[in-house]
Amino acid sequence: MNISNRINQMSEPALYKFYPDVHQKEAEGKKFYYLNIGQPDIETPKEFMDKVKEVRQKVLSYSDPEGQEELRKEALKYYKQFNLNYDEDDILITSGGSEALLFVFLTICNPGDQILTPEPFYSVYKEIAKATSVELVGIPTYAETQFSLPEKEIIEDLITDKTRGILITNPNNPTGKVFTKKEIEAIKDLCLEKEIFFIADEVYREFIYDGSEFISPGHYLELNQNTIIVDSVSKRYSACGARIGFIISKNKDVMLAIKKLCQMRLAVSSVDQQGATELFKLDTSFFDKSIKEYEHRRNLIFEKLKDRKDIVAKKPTGAFYYMVKLPVKSAEPFIDWLINEFDDNNESVILTPANDFYLDPEKGKDEVRLAYVLNEDELNRAIDVLLKGLDQYKKEHPENIKKEFK
Amino acid sequence: MNISNRINQMSEPALYKFYPDVHQKEAEGKKFYYLNIGQPDIETPKEFMDKVKEVRQKVLSYSDPEGQEELRKEALKYYKQFNLNYDEDDILITSGGSEALLFVFLTICNPGDQILTPEPFYSVYKEIAKATSVELVGIPTYAETQFSLPEKEIIEDLITDKTRGILITNPNNPTGKVFTKKEIEAIKDLCLEKEIFFIADEVYREFIYDGSEFISPGHYLELNQNTIIVDSVSKRYSACGARIGFIISKNKDVMLAIKKLCQMRLAVSSVDQQGATELFKLDTSFFDKSIKEYEHRRNLIFEKLKDRKDIVAKKPTGAFYYMVKLPVKSAEPFIDWLINEFDDNNESVILTPANDFYLDPEKGKDEVRLAYVLNEDELNRAIDVLLKGLDQYKKEHPENIKKEFK
Repeated sequence: MNISNRINQMSEPALYKFYPDVHQKEAEGKKFYYLNIGQPDIETPKEFMDKVKEVRQKVLSYSDPEGQEELRKEALKYYKQFNLNYDEDDILITSGGSEALLFVFLTICNPGDQILTPEPFYSVYKEIAKATSVELVGIPTYAETQFSLPEKEIIEDLITDKTRGILITNPNNPTGKVFTKKEIEAIKDLCLEKEIFFIADEVYREFIYDGSEFISPGHYLELNQNTIIVDSVSKRYSACGARIGFIISKNKDVMLAIKKLCQMRLAVSSVDQQGATELFKLDTSFFDKSIKEYEHRRNLIFEKLKDRKDIVAKKPTGAFYYMVKLPVKSAEPFIDWLINEFDDNNESVILTPANDFYLDPEKGKDEVRLAYVLNEDELNRAIDVLLKGLDQYKKEHPENIKKEFK
Repeated sequence: MNISNRINQMSEPALYKFYPDVHQKEAEGKKFYYLNIGQPDIETPKEFMDKVKEVRQKVLSYSDPEGQEELRKEALKYYKQFNLNYDEDDILITSGGSEALLFVFLTICNPGDQILTPEPFYSVYKEIAKATSVELVGIPTYAETQFSLPEKEIIEDLITDKTRGILITNPNNPTGKVFTKKEIEAIKDLCLEKEIFFIADEVYREFIYDGSEFISPGHYLELNQNTIIVDSVSKRYSACGARIGFIISKNKDVMLAIKKLCQMRLAVSSVDQQGATELFKLDTSFFDKSIKEYEHRRNLIFEKLKDRKDIVAKKPTGAFYYMVKLPVKSAEPFIDWLINEFDDNNESVILTPANDFYLDPEKGKDEVRLAYVLNEDELNRAIDVLLKGLDQYKKEHPENIKKEFK
């Protein structure tokens, strides 16, 4: 009785192996700043639970497989504010963005087919690809150029007769990159030329700084049949625990296929859907405060890192992540050391090693992802502790430092 | 841009195509008795929403991928009452029983592998099998013998080197069959001999009548490594809209694989998990009333059908379904006629055509599934309307009636 190859090839998040140590140290009184978690600290709007408390159904029955009509209608109004004009037939509700992605992979790919995505990428993509026997192909991007897309020709060369689509997270997790109009249009042109899907995971849609522009494949009429938008309330409304996601497309074949998958799993949580309906009724001004707060935090990290010659940390323009390249040969032993060996006044930090975000874990070995979901004081302190730790690690473990930074 | 074969091969429930007609007729004032729906009419215990209303989290954050500890603990206490003795490491929470099944198929099968299941079976199995590129193989059972399993040798002959497990729904949807100790032990012996998994979908565990015995593969120590139990709160607590399911197994490799899949989709609804925790605190006496009610309804249908020479309707012993074989050549045109042509005082009934429950839809053509989730008065009237309809259909459409019943 063996476990299937598809699941055997899946990995567990690299960070998980550190948690027993973290919990042990915490029990001993050490404080950790969690710079690793993508869980927003902004309060969930109270409208969610207010609505949930009003639910009066005597029998908590299945919702429609496609999702509750009221939620779909409210979501469509919200999308119009971003110039994303879709109708009721173009939207289906999923159990979080992760189910939306799983359904898209199943729908557009047979086992062995390929999906291209800028690398580094959200690590869950890799696991969904393995579960669905899809080959994920990375479009290389680099810390030194703030993870911008390469020239169109380089992407084109990666497309084979097995390629079914190009998937972007925009704004990006883990890099904080917001794709420019030029970049989006290069992918658009490729998708039209090669007749492949353009999948945009836009769960961080609002989180764009410095007045940068939000461009979606959904803005291009000529791309209607290629475009599939994946979305979620998790990050936008600080409601990760409500499992509400969306798939949006004008492609009728895609929507029929997704509908079958929705029927296969019967329904999404009734209570969560009713709560989420209220979230979409919030004015977009709701985001102004949290976006200002995140932008401020990003600036704080940037100011602290910008003069370090041993760290590559180009200023990201979106989401709430900061990918930085460290002078260490490998981030994992450094993180282990931060947890188990180092402290500053009995405090330390936890970082996400970036190798989870690459197909070849050797590639992102010297990078880490920082999530700025701590308040200003804690974030300030966390970055200071991190830099102190790095300086001490360089002295104590020169064998683990790249030779140009020794 | 094509849709994948795996999704193209999936079908939509046969009944869906009738709904536009039903809604049209309802708008014109015709009343339908829904004998087709597996949605219990028993009220959801108020403890669920009472707990939900108390949720006070400022940030509705992700739950653990494996599910909330308190829910898992309460569920384990519940299982012990059924002599199912499992530990905290043996249980993971899923988004409903359907996600549990999806994860089990992905975990034990590579694309092309096989799972055996008694046929007719819960139609969602067929769709999950297609989505996961698994071949479902039917173990033939028949209305005339109340869908009992065939001799062990017949099942054994169906096992190939591609077979990874035998899946049973016990008590069964759509047949209402409760598998006997002898039947369970025959499968147990086969699973041990052939080293394959024994998957038991026990979402109707309590719904057993006439004092029949509930036997689970989880009752056999020697089968620990083969057994995977799938479960859900949906039917048990009349809480289909709360998406809470379970996977239970002592097999560590299986549980690690399932854990990876849980991490892939991050979490299950926080609010639903908190509500469900309270459901498991209910005394099992909670079920006594609803089981008595269902047993009474089943008896009611049996009494009305037992003397019909043109209907095969052996008395089922569990769940809340009744599979009956009709004298019609094909149930679908009969259902169409019931919806669009027939009425008794402007009332009619809706039935589920059984062909969805078979791999070869030709097989179950003359069978329908009745769900007894209507109260006594409505159910009485519904069966009367159905039988009146059948008698009238026999007169009006003798060409659609099997020749021995004309």
